[in-house]
Amino acid sequence: MGKKTLRFENAPVIFSSASVVGKKEKEGPLSDYFDMHDPSDKFGLKTFEQAESEMQRTALNLALSKAKARPEDIEAVFAGDLMNQCTGSSYGLASFGIPYFGLYGACSTAAEGLMLSAMTVDRGVFLTAAAVSSSHNSSAERQFRFPLEYGSQRPPTAQWTATAAAAFLIGRKEDGRKGCAAITEALPGRIVDKGITDANNMGAAMAPAAADTLLRYFIDEGHLPSDFDLIVTGDLGHEGHSICKELLSSEGLELGDIFSDCGIMLYDAKKQDTHSGGSGCGCSASVTAGYIMKGFADGKFKNVLLIGTGALMSPSSVQQGLSIAGIGHLVHLTSVS
Amino acid sequence: MGKKTLRFENAPVIFSSASVVGKKEKEGPLSDYFDMHDPSDKFGLKTFEQAESEMQRTALNLALSKAKARPEDIEAVFAGDLMNQCTGSSYGLASFGIPYFGLYGACSTAAEGLMLSAMTVDRGVFLTAAAVSSSHNSSAERQFRFPLEYGSQRPPTAQWTATAAAAFLIGRKEDGRKGCAAITEALPGRIVDKGITDANNMGAAMAPAAADTLLRYFIDEGHLPSDFDLIVTGDLGHEGHSICKELLSSEGLELGDIFSDCGIMLYDAKKQDTHSGGSGCGCSASVTAGYIMKGFADGKFKNVLLIGTGALMSPSSVQQGLSIAGIGHLVHLTSVS
Repeated sequence: MGKKTLRFENAPVIFSSASVVGKKEKEGPLSDYFDMHDPSDKFGLKTFEQAESEMQRTALNLALSKAKARPEDIEAVFAGDLMNQCTGSSYGLASFGIPYFGLYGACSTAAEGLMLSAMTVDRGVFLTAAAVSSSHNSSAERQFRFPLEYGSQRPPTAQWTATAAAAFLIGRKEDGRKGCAAITEALPGRIVDKGITDANNMGAAMAPAAADTLLRYFIDEGHLPSDFDLIVTGDLGHEGHSICKELLSSEGLELGDIFSDCGIMLYDAKKQDTHSGGSGCGCSASVTAGYIMKGFADGKFKNVLLIGTGALMSPSSVQQGLSIAGIGHLVHLTSVS
Repeated sequence: MGKKTLRFENAPVIFSSASVVGKKEKEGPLSDYFDMHDPSDKFGLKTFEQAESEMQRTALNLALSKAKARPEDIEAVFAGDLMNQCTGSSYGLASFGIPYFGLYGACSTAAEGLMLSAMTVDRGVFLTAAAVSSSHNSSAERQFRFPLEYGSQRPPTAQWTATAAAAFLIGRKEDGRKGCAAITEALPGRIVDKGITDANNMGAAMAPAAADTLLRYFIDEGHLPSDFDLIVTGDLGHEGHSICKELLSSEGLELGDIFSDCGIMLYDAKKQDTHSGGSGCGCSASVTAGYIMKGFADGKFKNVLLIGTGALMSPSSVQQGLSIAGIGHLVHLTSVS
């Protein structure tokens, strides 16, 4: 298979990041970690789809502002979302004029964007890059399932699409970019399809892909779980995370208490009625930009593994009876001394 | 704006490519250049969506076969299509087990994939990469406009979504990869929105983005049109291409007879009733993998510029009254002596 885990010798740093969330996310356990929220979930716009674009725009503007950078300082943006034809990103980011690479990685998009930013910045293709992604509960529900107004009952395995967006700016320390966390490794995911056909159980569909990537990293390549403060999938939810743990256990890999999931962390599932937990491109993006980056800033984290997971289906493919394939992209974040 | 055109010092070569097309494309002027076609457009599968996935699978298999390579020899695949959530790619490429980067660039996806493959292979992130993309007239029409069975009338500015897929394998000459054409430069596109709201006139929506990229390359950076045997947009169609020419003329850039468009080249618009010409991720992909690569093999081409163009809208965004943004990604192909 040639090279597996990619190592970034120049350790590109995340020199700025920002997160923007909706009402429910602001009411959750990670409330204090987000930069901005709007209790109306509309962000001043007429439709939920345009609100999602506005969240991407605001997240990138906040990240630029924190870094005292201008759009012209960013040489490429890697962006994506869940909406058909990824319009959250294209409409959200059009006005910046930054060379644009559209991605589709479902809920793994934040990790995919971080990986591509790290690859291109590490090797000097770009001096700086941005990774931006988003999801919006109301735009996703009416596209993938039912408009919220229908009041459809959700099964216990269903996840709650996060209303959240995040932006990360990546550059090299040697080029004067300062940050608390660097991207030191990445392991791109492979598509794994284990035959799950229930679109209300995306965690189960994505768990084998997360396990595939984690097993390649820890078992095939011999990395040690004890080297990490946090190993976090994003977003398997309670159901998918427990399946992933079982799959890893059956192969002899125990990650212990440091193994969590962004979808579990984002909400208090019992109090907030989010069933199996959070999902959507914005979930792992905002947990990483908010909670995890703060942990690096505070010196709480030295090494974190993010395994961005995505379910690569569509409403049509599910209606046509196809099973749901998943993917898990791994990014290793290391503190910068 | 920092760096503009990216130069690839190691000049990664396209060491194999393959194209798979439907009935109408096989009946067009480029008939002889494609590797495979199916007059039923179904490729042995039950739905048009699955047929599109099968076309990607077949294109990649053919490209691997021509290169006597196995899936394990390819370290990353950059792939995308027009279907919601890009399921043409995820279902089409799942079984290969190649680390997967999902893209969404609308009809510019082939160029976006070639760019990312060139960047990562040139800088040694991957030894080899593949770029795969597709579109299918029947899956696209029912998703973006109306099911074909309705027999809706198409306006003269409408383009015809190509039933086509192509795969390219990229590697370095110094690693023993041989091919007739190398990717020597790339200029990533910016999102350009000039306010076009007619989803039946995508060429007009994309023309300003193609012009933006071409003007940056030729006027801002001083490259010479006379250095090229062919400068080809993909896919503006007749309408969009003539708008693009006018936009370039008004800025003093005349590209002359060598300036064409994959959407114009793929069909005989009058005989084949394709109105403004071809479009879809598979159009520029198959014209490049078929006609352009053959031109390099025959020694007819020494330098070709492909400007992959995409319209970054969705049916929802159009219904909500938003204008259609476009993008144009430039790739410079040079003959390998």
